[in-house]
Parts: sequence; structure tokens; C-alpha cells
Amino acid sequence: MIAVFGDETLLRAALDFEAALAHAQAAEGAIPSDAAEVIAGACAGARFDIAELAEEAAHAGTLAIPLVFRLRALIAASDGPAAKLVHLGATSQDLADTALMLQAKAGAALITAEARGLADALARLAETYAETPMLGRTLLQGALPITFGLKAANWLLGVDAALRRFEREAQEALVLQLGGGAGSMAGLTFAVAERMAADLSLGAAPMPWQSRRDGVAGLASALAILTGAVGKIARDVSLMAQGEVAEAFEPRVDGRGGSSAMAHKRNPTGCQVALSAAARAPGLVAAILSGLPQEHERGLGGWQAEAPGLASLFELAHGALAAMRPVAEGLEVDATAQRRNLRAANVGADTGQSAALARRALAHYRRDR
Amino acid sequence: MIAVFGDETLLRAALDFEAALAHAQAAEGAIPSDAAEVIAGACAGARFDIAELAEEAAHAGTLAIPLVFRLRALIAASDGPAAKLVHLGATSQDLADTALMLQAKAGAALITAEARGLADALARLAETYAETPMLGRTLLQGALPITFGLKAANWLLGVDAALRRFEREAQEALVLQLGGGAGSMAGLTFAVAERMAADLSLGAAPMPWQSRRDGVAGLASALAILTGAVGKIARDVSLMAQGEVAEAFEPRVDGRGGSSAMAHKRNPTGCQVALSAAARAPGLVAAILSGLPQEHERGLGGWQAEAPGLASLFELAHGALAAMRPVAEGLEVDATAQRRNLRAANVGADTGQSAALARRALAHYRRDR
Amino acid sequence: MIAVFGDETLLRAALDFEAALAHAQAAEGAIPSDAAEVIAGACAGARFDIAELAEEAAHAGTLAIPLVFRLRALIAASDGPAAKLVHLGATSQDLADTALMLQAKAGAALITAEARGLADALARLAETYAETPMLGRTLLQGALPITFGLKAANWLLGVDAALRRFEREAQEALVLQLGGGAGSMAGLTFAVAERMAADLSLGAAPMPWQSRRDGVAGLASALAILTGAVGKIARDVSLMAQGEVAEAFEPRVDGRGGSSAMAHKRNPTGCQVALSAAARAPGLVAAILSGLPQEHERGLGGWQAEAPGLASLFELAHGALAAMRPVAEGLEVDATAQRRNLRAANVGADTGQSAALARRALAHYRRDR
Amino acid sequence: MIAVFGDETLLRAALDFEAALAHAQAAEGAIPSDAAEVIAGACAGARFDIAELAEEAAHAGTLAIPLVFRLRALIAASDGPAAKLVHLGATSQDLADTALMLQAKAGAALITAEARGLADALARLAETYAETPMLGRTLLQGALPITFGLKAANWLLGVDAALRRFEREAQEALVLQLGGGAGSMAGLTFAVAERMAADLSLGAAPMPWQSRRDGVAGLASALAILTGAVGKIARDVSLMAQGEVAEAFEPRVDGRGGSSAMAHKRNPTGCQVALSAAARAPGLVAAILSGLPQEHERGLGGWQAEAPGLASLFELAHGALAAMRPVAEGLEVDATAQRRNLRAANVGADTGQSAALARRALAHYRRDR
Repeated sequence: MIAVFGDETLLRAALDFEAALAHAQAAEGAIPSDAAEVIAGACAGARFDIAELAEEAAHAGTLAIPLVFRLRALIAASDGPAAKLVHLGATSQDLADTALMLQAKAGAALITAEARGLADALARLAETYAETPMLGRTLLQGALPITFGLKAANWLLGVDAALRRFEREAQEALVLQLGGGAGSMAGLTFAVAERMAADLSLGAAPMPWQSRRDGVAGLASALAILTGAVGKIARDVSLMAQGEVAEAFEPRVDGRGGSSAMAHKRNPTGCQVALSAAARAPGLVAAILSGLPQEHERGLGGWQAEAPGLASLFELAHGALAAMRPVAEGLEVDATAQRRNLRAANVGADTGQSAALARRALAHYRRDR
Repeated sequence: MIAVFGDETLLRAALDFEAALAHAQAAEGAIPSDAAEVIAGACAGARFDIAELAEEAAHAGTLAIPLVFRLRALIAASDGPAAKLVHLGATSQDLADTALMLQAKAGAALITAEARGLADALARLAETYAETPMLGRTLLQGALPITFGLKAANWLLGVDAALRRFEREAQEALVLQLGGGAGSMAGLTFAVAERMAADLSLGAAPMPWQSRRDGVAGLASALAILTGAVGKIARDVSLMAQGEVAEAFEPRVDGRGGSSAMAHKRNPTGCQVALSAAARAPGLVAAILSGLPQEHERGLGGWQAEAPGLASLFELAHGALAAMRPVAEGLEVDATAQRRNLRAANVGADTGQSAALARRALAHYRRDR
Repeated sequence: MIAVFGDETLLRAALDFEAALAHAQAAEGAIPSDAAEVIAGACAGARFDIAELAEEAAHAGTLAIPLVFRLRALIAASDGPAAKLVHLGATSQDLADTALMLQAKAGAALITAEARGLADALARLAETYAETPMLGRTLLQGALPITFGLKAANWLLGVDAALRRFEREAQEALVLQLGGGAGSMAGLTFAVAERMAADLSLGAAPMPWQSRRDGVAGLASALAILTGAVGKIARDVSLMAQGEVAEAFEPRVDGRGGSSAMAHKRNPTGCQVALSAAARAPGLVAAILSGLPQEHERGLGGWQAEAPGLASLFELAHGALAAMRPVAEGLEVDATAQRRNLRAANVGADTGQSAALARRALAHYRRDR
Repeated sequence: MIAVFGDETLLRAALDFEAALAHAQAAEGAIPSDAAEVIAGACAGARFDIAELAEEAAHAGTLAIPLVFRLRALIAASDGPAAKLVHLGATSQDLADTALMLQAKAGAALITAEARGLADALARLAETYAETPMLGRTLLQGALPITFGLKAANWLLGVDAALRRFEREAQEALVLQLGGGAGSMAGLTFAVAERMAADLSLGAAPMPWQSRRDGVAGLASALAILTGAVGKIARDVSLMAQGEVAEAFEPRVDGRGGSSAMAHKRNPTGCQVALSAAARAPGLVAAILSGLPQEHERGLGGWQAEAPGLASLFELAHGALAAMRPVAEGLEVDATAQRRNLRAANVGADTGQSAALARRALAHYRRDR
């Protein structure tokens, strides 16, 4: 995920934007076909120095300016007229937003794969332990009997609902941005935008969304909610792994969870990663939300604050998922300890509808996938 | 909206929960029908001292305990056996979460009505000014010509998309909570839960959601995004209302927008309300998101932090909508000033596809409503 | 604390502002002395309808306008010329900011008293249990022996440091605001401002701070840090109170901590209040911080968002302190269980420098108070 | 600043920690002097592969484990007994927290230098334009006359107060952490800690602060407040730079502020950087504040979330300062436009006490530096 939001992928996405723009304009007769081929070829073959470009972008305040400059220079060497047709009608934000959405699309695929893997592991836990009694705890106090399968089913529904929300929001947000200097599509056409969107496998908006950021904010919120749903599992596992409780443990992994001071320790490192991610995500969402009232046709400050926050949210969600999936897959459950703690709490043995609820949740999960 | 989340409505919602529980249990044969009638009658007729109850709830750490105590005392006077059947199988959180969702349902209706009214006013602006040229501005600098209708259409799509998200999230979150002491539905049945949900016009979850809070978090995020979409309009209007720009003004309202020091001033008070709401909402969302990793079957701290935050988010969203709807309905637009500022910027007169874009956005809005 | 930030106290503070302004202006010869007496008398005697005023303030966008209007009307009945001298040279924000600081000053006294009480109780715990061995836990895993006195000393230093920061920030923030319409002190003098500050027991700023909000932001942060330091105690107590750990418990309080479903439960209600407060405070700080880049001489949105957030932060900090002080004062410590859990963890019995560290912390605390 | 919080500096700080620990332990007779020399020599000469170490640290859940392993292996080759004395009595968090504070110390020096430079430039503006009349604006509406020097003086006091708070908080937070496995200083002594603190130029705490994070939270808040104070300048400059206002402009810098679509544009790129930083900082603070209630002797999740947030806050504060310092140093002020806009607002010409206030603020600033 770090690579997906790294400079190299950003540069590739930016070049894909320019190539798709040229192709679409050629298809609509706005520029000659051979100019588009020359531009697309240059985009495909360009090997710019990424560190230099990043520095120039920081100086210019936008990536588009140094990138388009270099692209034009590269093409001008062989084909002067084509060079002038690079980035035609587009503006910096068109490139920046579309490239971000291309990165987000790649990130979304990683998120979905990891979340599905986690959900499947949780479903197996829910099934295996549907009838395994344990102590249900509320406000950190023993309450009434449940089964461990019910607990796992609750984790499962949490992750599943959060993943669906994420997929809905991704569907809504992963949209081409093409508006030109002030979002009026001056010198552009709807047909060009629709071709580009199809070419880049992005959605098409009824009008450019350059100062309308609900899609990005929705995506950010959905990532934080997903991270929180994973953090919920980590919270429970780490509480169950306490020495005095000892009901479940992260699987042993060589070289993981040790202590530099205490050889006996076995730290819940997967939970640590997930809980740390769940602690960091909400503030990143707040920053994106607080940027929504952007100024006129392109915001000053609020817009520019979005991309690093969104990238971090993808990284945190993915990191949490990747940390907890193996925990769920290899969770060491001590049913004897669960039963012992339940007995010690002296709250009876009736596990209510736990097993039935767990199976109902499983059926719900399987029906909708 | 303040009434919707006030103590009186909360008490009413809590009594509705108890009545619906008794009715559903009677219909499923879990308690005698006449006991249910007695309970429901007491719930309908109860006139508890709200301030006293609130104090007792704060002391007890939950509303359910003093409320159920009083309800039982009220009933016991006439029907001892029925008194014991109040709140049967339910727990404090069942009452608290369900009552909150009943309040949220009432709040959602207000939000939707106000947002539709605002959207309609924005649609009228988009249509009326579809071809009215003005300066498009990016990064607070004059950029290229647009039309004022395009700007209004952008506001419209922002509010409309945010309202749809809100409606989706409300659909998902407005769900009955009924799990009993540890969420295992001990002493309860699915049939009772389904009857209750239908009776209260709430959705039914595959299993209790007491420590699975993605629904609440999604609703909170959607409210903040909606508030931000309204804040975006306020940002633009307040910038256009600057004396040097003078392109649009809030309508004059007697006694509003004055200054205690300067009689000549006409302050953008509607924008002030909306921008203040948009500044406050993101942090409230962050608090709810950071509570997602709740402990076991009921969280300690994170859960209790949700309700005041959600109530504030409803109030802020509604306050922003109610402040900006009359602004949109009565906006004073100075097309001459818009044209003058555009000319002064010396960026040409081609408004690109602005009018076509504005009409496309309008068609999109109308098709989907 | 709710009263301190209630409408009645706000109105009183606002009237105190107007009286102090009149007195100071009379002392400096800017208005006649008898006019000042009339104004101050009216301020002292005024009994305005608070609900009506609040509604008018919401409509006007500021409290000053309806308040000054009523004050003038009240005075005009007896003394026309004096009526015109009310609020002379001042603006709405002068009244609003100064009144908020008067409320904050009253709130700060409550915070300090409660925090000192909590700290003293923690100091007693640190002393009493300086040598009582227990298991030290890191990452929720048993680590090495400590003493319970060391844990209490750590809580003590946390609360003490947070209280000092709060006192520093209060010192810096509790300052008169008097700038007139645009902060230029037009029609005002430094001497008037200094007299007013002395009269109201507030600090005096080198120049009006109407769009310079670091003081408010610093105060807000300090309140959240204090709330977090109290939340830290709640986190530890609630973890120690888990049934399987059973090392410490909140004192029993009649009618507190019960469950509406489970008669056996004893919930950590004080911890619940403190942890909920600690979950809500950070987002409120973020809202205030994000408003710092205010527009020109008075911000639009960011400024108006401050007061409700600051009031909530005072309430949350005070609520957390008031909830945890009796917990610390009456904490039921089970040293036998602590010893048993330590032995079971099999990490040796050497409590290191724990007792010496606890005493060192105590000495540090006592020296500086 | 990115280098200060980069992996290379972190590794260097971690090695400095180990060397200082060995030196202090030798000075106190806890380990042989020649072993300390060998360890310190190895720390000085170590050239570990940073990417490999980072990956191992991510896997282990802490940097200390792979680093100490490598350091021991490096030393063992020449001196077996010394190898075993590396990291003696310390724990992962001792290294992590102390290294973070060493990075923060280096970061603080950069912040202070840049903030002083900005303040000096603002002081020059306040002096130069003390009597230059312009329109004071409240709620984005023309209010009353001020001078531009008053506006600059307000910026100056904001930055100066924020810098002082930062320096106070740095003083409080930049403290050695040395507690061993559970913070009991088992196998360590106060004398060792004091020597180490002196050696590393950090403060010494009365007891280890591993689960007492008010210092980090205070530093984080102070950085965000400083960033907000810089953002305030950026807000005003960007509003003044609007084409219709045209009162002040960022200095022209080659290759900066251009547009990829519109050659005529001159974007306020310094303001953009500062406003984006001010939008991102508050959420990062919220994340750190929400981690304050850490579990027992070392938190799980909340602690680990701090370091990346703190690093980002240093980078944002420094980025904002570095962007706005040249803007303040080279600000192009159009006093004619200021006068014209003032006249057009028709609010009189009396600039009140503006010049006197500006000079008073300057005197205040200079007296305390």
C-alpha cells in the first residue's frame, strides 16, 4: 500500500492521465491521432527523475507544472507540434485529483482483498466456536454467558458492514476529474471526459468535482470505520490475551512480539498495529472533513490537505487488516480457560441464543457475498 | 432539532421502547396480553419529573435503571405481576441505543426536509443563472470565466450527494437494538425483536449491534459531510459578499446581521452559522470514530461518548441547513458586479461549457429525485 | 460547571462587562460619573428574560445587540443621556470574548479545586501502597514487578503536570478583550482597558486579541490533556477491576454502577464518565485548533465555533475529575489479589526501585505545591 | 525537518541512547569502563542497513529488538562479555521514547530559528506600516479603519505567543525516558539516569514517564497552535491578494505559483502550504490526545500512534513557517489599494489607536526577546 501511494505510482498515474487525455481528444477529433500516439508513447516511455520532480513540484506548488514541462520537452525533441498538445485544456487539479483516484483504485483492490480474507477467517471462527461457552463482558465486567462464536460473528458483521460501506464509497468517489482551469470544461467536451473515464476505468461525474469533495470525504470516513472495525477485534483479542484472562492469543510468529527487556513476554503485536491505526485514523478524517467548505472553484489549503490524509488512511486501514488477518487465521483459543472464567464469574451457563445468533450472522454474511 | 434530542423526547422514546417490548412479548406469548396492556398504558400515561430522572440517570450511569424502577412502581400500585414484566430480558443499552435511534429517525426527517428545500432553492439558482457570466476563481485568484449557474449547480450536486449518503446511512443505522445483558438475546427471541422493530418503524439487524458501532459512525460521518457541503455554499457566499467583490448577498432580515458597534454593517449571519457548524462537526465525528474499538460486549467510555456527539451533529447539520436555505432562497445576486469583476480580471469571456454543465447537473438532480 | 457555562452566568458576565466599561470610562473622564452609576445600577438590577434574550441573540447572530438594546431601553426610561453611553466604543466581540473569559475564570477555580482534591487522594494512595507489590503490565501483558504505590505516583504526576499546564494556560488566556469595531480601540484608551481588566480580575493584553486565538486554543488543549490524565487513571482502574484481575474496585455507592439486566453487576461508573470525557475532548480541541486561521479582524465561523467547544471542554474535564476523585479517595485495593497475580505471572519478585520512585514522585509533588 | 524525523536520524539517536547508557553505567560502576568504550565505539561506528532494520522493526513491533541484536553481534565478534552489557536494564520503550525526544530536540531548534525569522519579518512590517491606513474587516465585511501595521502586529503577537508556548512545552517534554521493563527502574539507578540525561542534553524526570504522556501531548498541541498562528497570516494574505482587493501579494519567485492551465495566474503558494498545514495539524493533535488514557505501564495502540503524529506535526509547523517567512520578508504591499478600498467602504478615516497599538505590540515583543 505504501508503494500504491508512493511517488513512483503517482508519476505513473499522472502519465496515464496525460496519455488518456490525448487518446480521448484524438478519438473526438480535437487533436490529430498521430500527435496522440506520440504523446502516449512519450508517457509510456518517460523515465523522469522522481526525486527531482518531487522537489520541483513542491516548489511550484503542483506536480502538473514540472511534469508537463518535461513531457513537452521530451516530445519537442522529436515532434514540436505534438508537444504543444500535451495537457490540452486540462489544469493541475485535473491531473492531481485523477491521479489520486487512480491510486485510490489500486489501493481499494488491496483493501478489499485483505478485508475479504479477514472476514473469511472470522467466519470460520464463528462457525467453529458457535457453541463454545465463554463469559460475555460489558463495561469490562462479567455479565452473562455467550459463546465465542457469537463474539467472532459480531467481529465478522462489523468488518463486513464496513467493507460494504467502503465499496459503496469507492464506487462513488473513484471518478475522473476533468474541468480545466476553473471547472467550466472550457476547451473540453463531455465526450472526451467520458472516453477518458472509460479508458482509466474510473466513473464519470455529471460535472467536474474540483471543489465538491464529498466523495473524498466519504471514502476517508469509510476507511476509518473499517479500521475501527478491525481495531474492535484487536481490542477484544488483546483483552482476552491478558495473563489473568488467557482465553485467546495471537499465533506465535518467529521474531514477533518479543521484548528487548523480558524474554518471557509474548506481546500482541498484531493488535498493537491495528489499535494504533484505529487511534490515528479519526483525526485524519477530521482534517478532510474540515476542508469541505472549499473556496470557489478550487480551495486554498483544504484541498491540498486531502491527498496526504487519504493516503495515510489507506495505509492505516490496510496495515490494520494485514496485521489482524493472520491473527484471526491463526488465533489460539483456549476454550478451557473460557469455560473456567465463565464458571468463576458465577453468572449461570445459559448461552441464550448465542449459537443461533452466530449462525444467523454467518448466513447473512454468506448470502450477501 | 434541539427538542428532538432533548430530555423529553428521549423519555418518550424510552417509554415507547418499553411499550413495544411488552406488546411484542405478548404477541409471542412470552407475557400475558393484559400485562402488556397495563405496561403500555403506564408508558403512555407516565408523567415523570424529567429533571429528577436525568439526575438519577447521571448518578446510576444509565437512564434505564431509574426509569424502569419508576415504571414498575407506577404499575405495581395497580398490578403487581405486570410490574415485574417491565423491561423483561432487556438491558440498559437496549433501551439507550433504541431510544437514540428513535430520536435519530425523527431528526433524519427534519434533515431531509430542510436539505430538500435547500436543494430546490439551489436548483432554481442554477437554472436562473445558468448563463450569467462571472469570474471563476481558484486558490482565491481569478482564473477563467464560468457562470453563476455553474457555481450554484456545483453547490446543488454537493448537497444532493451528501443528502443521499445521509439517507443511505440512516437506512443502515436506524435499527432496533435488543440483545439483553450481554447481547446473547437470553430470554428473548428473534420474533420479539422483529415485531418490535416493525412496531417502532426501525430496521432489524441480523444480530444485536451493541458493540458494533459502524452504523452510528457512518451516520455521524454523513451528517458532517452534509454540514460541510452546506458550509461550502456559505464559504462562497461570504467571499462573494465581501465589499470589494459585492457579487451576492444574504437577503436582508430584520434584526439579523447587524453590529453592536457599526450601524452600516450587514453581516453574513447565515453563512456564519453554517461555517461555524462545519468547523465543529469534524471533531465530533473523530470522537465517535475513535470509540469504534469498543471493549467486548459493551464498551466503557467509547460507547457513552457517542450519543452527545451524534445529537450535536444532528443539531449542527440542521442548523446549517436552516441557516442557508433562506440564504439560497433569497440570495441577492448582482450580475452586473459579476460581469464587472470578470472583465476586470481580463481572462476572456468564454464561459466554456458552464451553462451546459449547469443544465446537465440539474437534469441529473431531477432524474434521481 | 454546567451553571458556570449556562445562560444565566453568561448574562451576568455580559452585564459585568458593561458595568466595568462604564466605570472605567468614568474614571478616565470619558463619560460622566453619574451616567456610569446609572449604567452600573441598571446592570446590577437588570432581570431580563433569558430565554427571550437567547432567541434574539441567535437571530441577531450575537448577544450584544439585543442585550445592549434592552439595557438602553431600561436606562432610557429614567436617564436618556446615560442610555446612549452604554457599550460606548465596544463591539459585540468585546462583550462575547470577555464574558467567555469571566465564565472560564469561574470554571478554572472549580477545575483547580477538584484536581487538587484528586491529586491529594492519589498522593495518599502512592504513600500507602509504596511497597505493595503487584504485576507491572506493558502492552496488556505481564512484564515485571512494580508496586501499586508506583502506579499511583504515576497517576499523581500525570494529573499534577496537567494541572500546572492548565494553570499556566489559564493565566495566559484569561485576559480582557476590548478593541472596538475592528480592534483598533477607536474611541477607547489603554487606561480604560487596564482599569476594566483590574476591575474584572482579568489580565491585560498588549493589544486586543480578537483574531489571535492562541490563548483559547492553549486553554482548550490543556483541558483535554487534564481530562486525558484523569482518563489514564480510569483506564487502569477499570482494567484492575476486571473479574479475572480483581485488584482494585471503585467504592460502592448506593444506586450507582448497577445494571438493569443483571443484579450481580458492579460497574465502574466513575471510570465510565472519565473515559467517555477523554474520548470526547480531543475532537473538541481539534475544532478549536482548526479555527485558528481566522479571517482578518474577526473570523467568520472559526471564531463562533470556539465558545461551545470550550464550554464542553470545561464540563468534560470537571466531570472527569469529579467522577474520579471519589474513586481515588475510596478505592478498594485488594493487595492479596495483586500479590497473587504477580506470583502467577512468574516474573520474579524484585520490585526494583518502585518504592523509592513513588516516594521521589511524592516529594516532587509536595515540594512544588 | 524531514531528515530530522527520518530513519537515519532515528537510528543515530537510538545508537546515541545505547552509548550514553553504557557510559553512564560505567561511570556509576555498573559495568566495566572498557566494556562501555567498546559499546560506545560500536555505536559510533555502526553502519547498519537502514531499510533492513526498518523492516525487521516493523516485524518485531519495535526497533530495539533488531537494533540491540545487531549491536550485540557486532561487538561479540571482538568482545563477547561487552556484547551482553549492551542495553542493560533498558527496555524498547526507553530507547524509542528517548530517541524520539532527541529527534524532537533537533526539530525544536529548526522550529525556533524559523519562527524567530518570521517574527522579525513581521516586526518589520508592523513598524514600516504602523501608520498606513487600510480597511479593518470583521466577518468578511468592511468594519472600521485600521492600519496595516496593526494587522502585522497582530500576526507578530500570535506567532510570538505560540513560539513561547512551544518553547515551554519543549522544555517540559524533552526529557530522558529510562524505566526498564515496567518502569520500575529495576537494575537501574537514578544516578545512571541523571548522567544519561546530562550526556544527551535532555531533562530528567522525577520518575519514568512511559505511560504518562502529557509532555508529548503538550508539545503536539503547541506545534498545532504555532501552525495555526502561521495559518492566520496566510489566511489574511490570501484574502488581501484576491484580485478585487489587491492589497498585498506574495513576492514573485521563479517557477512558483504558476498554473498549468492559465499563464496569467500568480497563486499564493506560500499561503497554500501554510493553510494546508493548519488544516492537517488539528486532527494529528486529536489522535495524540485520544491516546492519553494508556493501559497500565505501557499502552497498546495509543502509545504507538504518537510518534508518527508528532513527526508530522513538526514537519507541518516547520513547513508552514518556512513557507510564510519569505512571504513576510518580501510581501508586496500596495498601500494605494489599501487606501482606495478603505475610502470605498465609506467608514471614515480615523484609524483609532492603530499606530499606537502596533508600536505597543512591538515594544512588548522586543522587551521579552
